[in-house]
This record gives sequence, structure tokens and C-alpha cells, in this order.
Amino acid sequence: MRYYRLPAFTGVGALRMDERPVPEPGPRQVLVRMRAWSLNYRDLLIATGTYGRGMKPDVVPLSDGAGEVVAAGPEVTRWREGDRVLGVFMPDWISGTATADKIAASLGGTVDGVLAEYVVFDEDAVVAAPSHLDFAEAATLPCAAVTAWHCLMVQGTLAPGERVLTLGSGGVSVFALQFATLAGAEVIATSSTDAKLDRLRALGAAAGVNYTRVPQWGKAVFDMTDGGVDHVVEVGGAGTLPQSVRAARTGGRVSLIGVLARGDGLSPVPLLRKGLTVQGMLVGGRDTFEAMNRAVERHRIRPVVDRAVPFSAAPEAYRLLHSGGHFGKIVIVPD
Amino acid sequence: MRYYRLPAFTGVGALRMDERPVPEPGPRQVLVRMRAWSLNYRDLLIATGTYGRGMKPDVVPLSDGAGEVVAAGPEVTRWREGDRVLGVFMPDWISGTATADKIAASLGGTVDGVLAEYVVFDEDAVVAAPSHLDFAEAATLPCAAVTAWHCLMVQGTLAPGERVLTLGSGGVSVFALQFATLAGAEVIATSSTDAKLDRLRALGAAAGVNYTRVPQWGKAVFDMTDGGVDHVVEVGGAGTLPQSVRAARTGGRVSLIGVLARGDGLSPVPLLRKGLTVQGMLVGGRDTFEAMNRAVERHRIRPVVDRAVPFSAAPEAYRLLHSGGHFGKIVIVPD
Amino acid sequence: MRYYRLPAFTGVGALRMDERPVPEPGPRQVLVRMRAWSLNYRDLLIATGTYGRGMKPDVVPLSDGAGEVVAAGPEVTRWREGDRVLGVFMPDWISGTATADKIAASLGGTVDGVLAEYVVFDEDAVVAAPSHLDFAEAATLPCAAVTAWHCLMVQGTLAPGERVLTLGSGGVSVFALQFATLAGAEVIATSSTDAKLDRLRALGAAAGVNYTRVPQWGKAVFDMTDGGVDHVVEVGGAGTLPQSVRAARTGGRVSLIGVLARGDGLSPVPLLRKGLTVQGMLVGGRDTFEAMNRAVERHRIRPVVDRAVPFSAAPEAYRLLHSGGHFGKIVIVPD
Amino acid sequence: MRYYRLPAFTGVGALRMDERPVPEPGPRQVLVRMRAWSLNYRDLLIATGTYGRGMKPDVVPLSDGAGEVVAAGPEVTRWREGDRVLGVFMPDWISGTATADKIAASLGGTVDGVLAEYVVFDEDAVVAAPSHLDFAEAATLPCAAVTAWHCLMVQGTLAPGERVLTLGSGGVSVFALQFATLAGAEVIATSSTDAKLDRLRALGAAAGVNYTRVPQWGKAVFDMTDGGVDHVVEVGGAGTLPQSVRAARTGGRVSLIGVLARGDGLSPVPLLRKGLTVQGMLVGGRDTFEAMNRAVERHRIRPVVDRAVPFSAAPEAYRLLHSGGHFGKIVIVPD
Repeated sequence: MRYYRLPAFTGVGALRMDERPVPEPGPRQVLVRMRAWSLNYRDLLIATGTYGRGMKPDVVPLSDGAGEVVAAGPEVTRWREGDRVLGVFMPDWISGTATADKIAASLGGTVDGVLAEYVVFDEDAVVAAPSHLDFAEAATLPCAAVTAWHCLMVQGTLAPGERVLTLGSGGVSVFALQFATLAGAEVIATSSTDAKLDRLRALGAAAGVNYTRVPQWGKAVFDMTDGGVDHVVEVGGAGTLPQSVRAARTGGRVSLIGVLARGDGLSPVPLLRKGLTVQGMLVGGRDTFEAMNRAVERHRIRPVVDRAVPFSAAPEAYRLLHSGGHFGKIVIVPD
Repeated sequence: MRYYRLPAFTGVGALRMDERPVPEPGPRQVLVRMRAWSLNYRDLLIATGTYGRGMKPDVVPLSDGAGEVVAAGPEVTRWREGDRVLGVFMPDWISGTATADKIAASLGGTVDGVLAEYVVFDEDAVVAAPSHLDFAEAATLPCAAVTAWHCLMVQGTLAPGERVLTLGSGGVSVFALQFATLAGAEVIATSSTDAKLDRLRALGAAAGVNYTRVPQWGKAVFDMTDGGVDHVVEVGGAGTLPQSVRAARTGGRVSLIGVLARGDGLSPVPLLRKGLTVQGMLVGGRDTFEAMNRAVERHRIRPVVDRAVPFSAAPEAYRLLHSGGHFGKIVIVPD
Repeated sequence: MRYYRLPAFTGVGALRMDERPVPEPGPRQVLVRMRAWSLNYRDLLIATGTYGRGMKPDVVPLSDGAGEVVAAGPEVTRWREGDRVLGVFMPDWISGTATADKIAASLGGTVDGVLAEYVVFDEDAVVAAPSHLDFAEAATLPCAAVTAWHCLMVQGTLAPGERVLTLGSGGVSVFALQFATLAGAEVIATSSTDAKLDRLRALGAAAGVNYTRVPQWGKAVFDMTDGGVDHVVEVGGAGTLPQSVRAARTGGRVSLIGVLARGDGLSPVPLLRKGLTVQGMLVGGRDTFEAMNRAVERHRIRPVVDRAVPFSAAPEAYRLLHSGGHFGKIVIVPD
Repeated sequence: MRYYRLPAFTGVGALRMDERPVPEPGPRQVLVRMRAWSLNYRDLLIATGTYGRGMKPDVVPLSDGAGEVVAAGPEVTRWREGDRVLGVFMPDWISGTATADKIAASLGGTVDGVLAEYVVFDEDAVVAAPSHLDFAEAATLPCAAVTAWHCLMVQGTLAPGERVLTLGSGGVSVFALQFATLAGAEVIATSSTDAKLDRLRALGAAAGVNYTRVPQWGKAVFDMTDGGVDHVVEVGGAGTLPQSVRAARTGGRVSLIGVLARGDGLSPVPLLRKGLTVQGMLVGGRDTFEAMNRAVERHRIRPVVDRAVPFSAAPEAYRLLHSGGHFGKIVIVPD
């Protein structure tokens, strides 16, 4: 079978496609034939060696993928051949709150990921794909969607009528927009272009702010909401944090997800003045993934796929993500 | 002005319409000209002396009403003439969790209620009526709607994809259906007739169970949800509780609201087996009312008004409620 | 090795001591040589066929025991020989909130328990025994102590200065007294004799009520606390529930644990009046057990052991529990 | 009567003692003869114009004070002459979570404070002083103690066995040490001298770290706790935040209180890696104050008073606070 590996963390150019035998599932494991994969900005940071320490040398990249079970090892009880499944981002995080042990292993980072034609998973570390989604759509869920759900519905407890601010049109932000709308919240979205704002409105955003034209968008959102939003899904990092904090209401919540932009760090002063909660977000456990899938399936939520790239051209998917022009998720599909 | 009073708690026949001067608002008080009122089953129980001890002798009945501010006393800062307002069910419950002090006073029970042409309120004890509602619709909110919101969004924290069971088509149940749907939950409703179930489906219910035809409706709901609902909004009391408990999932929640039906009391055993939370529901504070109104207004939720009865025929509204054929709320309007 | 089994659920007399080979640990399993066991009232109910349906035929009884690892199967990473361990009451409940799947298996009930000289456990389904406890003390923790911790610290979130009511001097109640005191709460304990009340005071109770002399002890507690306790750890069941509900404050919590006494069932009315939460308690998961052990160890909490009975006379331990004169836990130790 | 005012925010030297008539309580107000006052670092920042915008011109300084009711205005129901009371830091924050409206007014900042011989309070905006404390001790509670309680018991929900890190020996830190110990938590304290660490241990700290000798104290605490503390009570601000974040466990909580030290701001990266919650702390409402007082009184907690300065020398108290050598609280007492 074909698979990718990262012999060096020196950039997308280091990615190597290689061949090895299809692996065998051990006890309580399943073999999954992968049918689609999806990228996150994290994958780009890992490839370029800027994600952090502790990455597995020569790692198989990517956390996100969908496939079908083609073989089950001994003692497997949860799955059978033909089941459509998705890997859990942190395979040891089954349930409950985060601990150091649960988050030590993450696919495509500290342990091998899914960018291979066949992958063996612990049977406890996969979930059923929502039945109404094709493999490409389902492949987008494990990291970005679970993160968005975790911050809105688990760390936060969004109620109808609350207001959520999302930044841009990347994967987490679009899922957050879809989920918050589903929960009856009012979403205000930012973007760099009016065309993208139109698409975000079509997905449910009640209002949009063009941050290119309105550099003080945090103040703008604060003013248009008459005192600030309840929750900011902050994917920009240090560069956008001051505006996000500005946009939040007294007692509000800022969920920190991304590390995209550079900046000066967060001053504690405005957090104090408004009594804000700033929450560093981990992706979430299998129980969060399953709760999200239940909602995704019941409401026939469709992930927004920007475009699909063939497996043999996977590095091109990284480059598209790096170029930043996407709206929603970039996926990889079999050739 | 005309108003009603209950010189004896001996039934609806005891209600007396009477005249007295329009009251004057004191410091931090407002005078409200009432424009609509609404009934709850509690009002019937109070009139018949079966609600409990501690009712104010000769009380002015009803907790629910809507009107407009016609005069403001000294030091009033929150309101001005012409504001459309609703009274808070427990006028001392402004914010936070319930305490004995906060719940001691309740309109139309331990203190005078609103079934009068003019009512004086503390300025802290009224909220703005949602702007898209007429007075009759707005008058339905203070007790039934706030209770439904409180149990789903404050005591519970409903997330999209969760399942809620509502019982019948009374005020609280219909509001619970509307609010749970708004929050992305899936609602299963029971009713005595298929015609009412059709109306409940039209309001958003995903499924309905005719409890006349299916006496073991608790088991039916458990089975159709593959393990039980997350939350039961239990308005029936002892008579329906065993079926409600049967319908709940392991770890689920049953919010106790009504005391309509007679029964044997609740056995603790099934609560233990499934680790259920049974929550006696108080209506809720002003902060809950305001959060609900925000959602009601943003989503243009319209309360379901069964019919309107003129002020001078208020006892007839009680009799309609007692007869039980209503769907949603019975309101009273000026002659 | 010797072990007990229950070929019929007809009473303690049905218990049979038998012999079979020492079992072998499979992959991810450990073999534990048991060094002490402990009884819960549940064990008595199971033996007499009154605990409920679904018990394993010919089950090995008891959920609670302590021992040391004497062999580890393949792929075991969490334990090594010599480790002192305790089994988790529900072996599939590792973390997070309860689900039907997590609670399906319970030791000594739906699956074999620990009343054997050697027991094989999944390595994930045991925890380390607190280091300051001997085996007899440690053996008391898996069911009663975890339940007490779960209700006070996980379902409830006890803060210093709050008031807790405990009933009697059985296992859960004594642990609840110890844990609540540790958390800075004020405990009021009931008992049938003044001598036992003295012992409960010595363990930290701030006040005691002799329920033999004060049949309306719920009202007595309500009055002496000037409005009711924050939390009742209710181990009596239907027979004591009305008094427990009487003792609680507005907005308080009643944790339902036991099913000892017979009674008429719980009227929903007083739950409504005070907005009470009544919570059916399941024991708790491994994460709860570990958090409790951390506190037990740091504070050198010692379980109260009433007396020890030798393994070969295990039925006598059941009879002592049935007779009800114990204070704290009855344990079984090797001959 | 004598009182202080701040005609300019140019430093402690701007403080003016002046005379004016004793004020009269209006409806629902009480007149309190102040018997002790206490300083917080906030008072120093206000005096030097570095606390922020919106301070009342010519404000009467200080938020913290204790006294006795000497007169009650019309309609007062909560107090009578002779009652020993403390002002609520934010007089409009009675209950529930923070909102912009509730936190707009703060004593000695946006509205007049308490550094006067007589002060009029709204009757809703004072609480009873714990009965075992003298006025000087009680005066220390409104800001520092409520903040410490709020972060440990309301925003956090500390359970026995958890670990808390406190920084230094200022007011909030010493209260946090006392309250966390009361709740059964294990406290690790930092300080600049071993002598102070000895005093902190005497108050209950399980361990101490001399941050002068161990500049990487965050790592030291992380290592000695085998994975980090559950909760950091962070009073240092930007200068200490990186070490505080280092000391926290995965999923831990950092409560931001102080703004003492200068630094580079908080990088979001470590918050993401460990999934930390960083919470900007507001002082807390009256309900929090009352819950804290209940615990303080039941456990006979005594605030640590560093020294007392006479009213006529109040500026000297500011200078002592500025010099930083104190341990616990600096108070002011009548001449």
C-alpha cells in the first residue's frame, strides 16, 4: 500500500510517498481502508517543524480521515466489516475531561497519522461516520469540527439567543458557525472579503464584518452587539486576540484555538476588566465526537469542502492550505 | 379601576370583580396599565385552595400579564412611559440561584397578582416585552415560558442533537417544544389525540406518541430513542412520573413541573438504576426571563394562544383551563 | 484456589465456597491475589434476590476487595508485580459521565465479583490502593467511598461552610461524613443511639440527631440549620425520603443512594416547593475513584472498619451486615 | 465628620483629609459609623492614576471597611442599629454572574468609597460581619477575601486533594491559602524569603518555593507536583504569568487577579498545549460574600492583619503597601 511519511520537519517538500505492506490488526484493533483525508493548519505547522516538540520522527502525517473497516482483529466487539469510521484525534481520550495521559498521543503528531491507504486503529479509537455524509465530507470532522463543538457545547454551554463571533472562513470557524446556528445562537463572522462574508451569511451568519476595511473589528462587534458577544471562537492567535477580547461581553468567553498570526501576547488587563474566561482548546475526546456526530446526523449538517486533491498529489493540498484562499476544508481523495 | 380578588379559596366561583382607585407608584416603582393577562394551572389550584399554604387572603389573582408603563415613581431609572413590560413571577428573584428569600413572594399567590386594570410593580421586577409580540402573546411568558426555559437552558444545558420529551399540549409543554427545537434538540411529544400530535409536529416535534393508545408510552419512547431521552419536561406529576422515568436515558434528567395528576409517588429505585436527576422546578429569576426574551425576540418565537376571553368574563378563562381542551395558552384581554 | 459463588439468589444460605484453578491473565489483564474484601448492603440484596434483574447466574459475589498484583498479562503497562490495587466497581466506567454501556457491568452483580483468593482484572479496571491503608481498610473503598465522593464532590460541588446531612452509621454515611468534613462542610448526622452519635461527632460531625427520639428529624434539622441543609446523603430510601426532603434548603440537593427502608414513594410536591434536586446515585467511574484516593491519601483518611471476618466464614459477614448493628464497614480477611 | 478624598490621581501625596456633615440615610439606606478600613493594591493604583479610566473625580477612596449601623432610613428591613456590617465591593452586584451593569459601580473607584468616619450604604449593599472578628479583621474581607473565595469556590470548584499554587504573601494570596486549606486542598506557596515561607506553612501551606532562589519556580512546582497544580491564584500579572502557566496541569485553571508586575503579555501557545483556562477575576457579588462569611464564621478563620495605621495617618498605610514588605493585610483604625 502507499502512504506518506515526513522524514524531516523541514517543510511540505519533505513529504515522501512510499510503499509498505498492508498492516494487520491486532487484538481489539480494526484495519480501515481509507477513502478520504482532510487537512488542518496543524498539519502544515508539523510539516514545517513549528508545531512544537515531541513529534514522532518519520511520522505518517494527518489526523483526519475516513474509511471503511475491512478487517477486525481478535476480541473486536464494536465494529464489523463495512462499517464507515473516522479516527479519534487523540486515540486515548475516550471520555471525560483532558488529562496529560489522554492527550499525549495525537494522530499525525506524536503518533502515526492517517495519510495511508490502510490504517490500523484501536477499536475504541474510531467512531461511526454520520450516515448522510460521503467519505470526503466525513473526513473533515475529527479535528476541526470536534474542536468547534467542544468549545461551544462542552467548554461553553451555548443557549439560544447568545451571540458568537467567528473569525474568517477556515475549517473550525465554518463548523463553529454551523453549530452555533444550530443551537439557536446568533453568529457574527469576520472575513477579509465581502464575497466570503456573503457565503458565511448564506451558512447562517446573522452579520459580517470585513476586517480588511474595519481594522478595529473588535470594537465594531462590541458596538453592534450593544455590549459584546458571549463567546469568541478565536482561531487567529496572538495577532487577533486583542480585538477578540475587545469584542467580548463582561463575563464572556474566548476560546483559543489557532496560532496562525504573530503578535505581542495577551495583556492580562482587559481580561480582568471584563472578567473574561480565556480557554486554550484541545480538540476533544471520543464522547464529544460522538455527541457532535449525533447532532450532525440528525440535522443533516454538511461540512463545507473547498476542494479535493488526489492522494498522489497530497503535498498540493498542503500548499493550497498555506496559500489561505480556501473556504472550509481541503480534502484528499484516492486517485 | 376594575380588578379581581379571591375572598375565599373555594373555587372559581369565589372570584369577585371589584373597583378601587388606580394606585400610585412609590419610589423605584412603575404604574402599568395592563393590556392582557394569561392563566396557568397554578391559578386554578390557588382558586380551589389546593395549591398550598401561605396564600395572601383576598389575593388579586394571576401571575401573568402584559401592559405599558403609564407612570414612573421617584428614582425610577429603568423605564419610561410607554414601555411595554411584563411582571416577574417572583418579584424578589432578580438573579442567580433560588433561595428561600427570593421565592417567598409570588404574584397572585403570596402577594397580589396582576388581574387588575392597573398594577404597580417595583421597577426591578418587570422586564421588557419582546417587541414582535402583541400584548396577548407577551402575557403568556412570565410563568410557563420562563419555567420551560429555566429547565432546559439553566438547570439543564441542552445541546443540539439531544432528545427532549414533552407531555401534552399545555403552556409549559408547548414552550418547551418551541425552545428545545430552537436549541437544535429533537423533541418527542405525547398527547391524547392524533390531531394535537399533528399540531405539535407542526411546531417542531420530531415524533409524537398518543398516550391514550399507548399507555406504556414511557417504554415506547425509550425504545424509539434507542435508550431513552436526555431530558423529560414532566408536567403531569405523580400520575405520569413512572412513565417519564421509564422514558429517560441513563444519566438523564426529569424536570418536575406540574402537579396535575394523582398517583402513588415516585419510587426511588428507578432513579438509582439509571442515575437520574429529578429536579423540582421553580419558575426562574429575572435574569432567566431576560435571557429567554432575547432568544424569543431574535428568533421571532410566537407563543401559541388558544383563545382570548374578555376581562369581565375572567372566570370563564379559568373554566376553559379546567376543561383541559386547550392547546397552548388561554389569555384574557380588556373588554 | 478457593472462591465463593451464588448458585441461587435465595439468601445468604445459598453461598457456596468452592475450589478452582488460579486463573491466567490475558492481554492487558492482571492477576491479583486478594488480601481483603468488604461488604455493602447491595451484596445482601443480591444474595436475597431483591437487588434487581440481570444478575449473572452463579455469580462470584462482592464488588469490593484489595490485593496485590502477582502476574501481568501481555501488553500490560499500568502495573507491575507487587502493586497494591483495588477493583473498579463498574469496570467499563473509566472516565466521564455515566452511560448505559459504562454501567452495564458491575462486579458481583452482572459480572463476577471479587470474593475469591485470586481475581483477574482488566488493567484499566483497577486503581492503586492509598499507600497509608492496610488491605482491610483499602478494601472498603470501591463502592461506598466512591459513592460518597461522587455525590459530594462530582454531582455536588461542596464548598466550605455548606451543610450536609448524613443518615446513620453505615459505610456510605461514614465516608460522607469524613469527606464532607475534609471539604470544610458542616455535617449533621442522624443515628438511632446517642452512643453512635458520639462516635459520629468524634469523626467530625458538628451535630447529631437521634431519630429514635426525634421521629420528625427532618423538621428538627431544618430548624437547627435555620432553613435547611445544602445536601442530604440519603441512604434510607422511600422510608426516610420525606424527612430528608423536609431537611433540605430551598434549592438544595438530595442524593439518593440506598434502598433500605420501605415507604410510600416520593411525592413530587415538596420537590417543587423548594426547587430540590433529587439525584439517583451510581457509584462512579475510575476517574472519580482516583480523585478520591488522592484526597484520602493526602489527608491520611482512615476508613472505619467495624470488624473483620475470616474468608472461610464469609456468610457470617453477610449476617452481621443484615443485623445492622455495625458502625462503618464489615470486612473479610484471609484465614 | 472627617473623610478623605482624592482631588487628583497623582499619587498618595494627593490624598486630602477633609470635613463634612454626617450624611443622612435615604429610603432603603443605612448610615454606618466606620470602625476600621483596609487597603488593597487597587487603592494604590487608583491613587497613582494607573488603575484605569472612569474613576470618579474627587473620589472618596477605599473599597474595604467595617462599621456599625447607627441609623436606618425609611423602608429598611434588613438591618437595625448596632448591626456590624461590611460594604459590598460592587454595590449593584447582589447575586448571580457578572454583567456590565452589575460591575459598573465599585467603591472607591467609580463611586465614592469608605474612607470616612460615616458612610451611607444601600441596605442591599452591605453584609453582616462574621461575629468572631473584630472590626480590623472584618475590614479586610470585602475585596481580597471575596476575590480569593470567588476564584476558588465559584469560578473554580475546589475538591479535597486538589493542589493550589499561591504567589507571595499579599492579601488575596493569604486568603486563598486559608480557604484552599479549609477545602481540603494542598497549597504550594511562593515567596521571596524563607521566613515568609515559614509563616505561610504555619498557615497551612504544604510546601513553599523561594522564587528568589528558584527563578524557574513554575517548572519547580510542575515537577514537585508530578504534572502540575490544578489551580493557580495568579496575583502577579504579566511578569509572573509564564511561570504560573508552566506550573499548571493539563486542563488546569489560572485565575488572574493582580496587575502588579510588568511583562511581555501572555503567549497563547502554552494555554493551547495544556488546554488551560485563564480566568480574569472580578471580585464577586454579595451572594459570594455571604457564602464566604458563612465559612469564615463557622471555621473561625482569622484574617492576617500585618499592621494597623490610624485614620489620620491613612497615607502612611498606602506607603506601607507600596513598600511591599507586608504579610497579609494593612488596616486603618480610628485615631
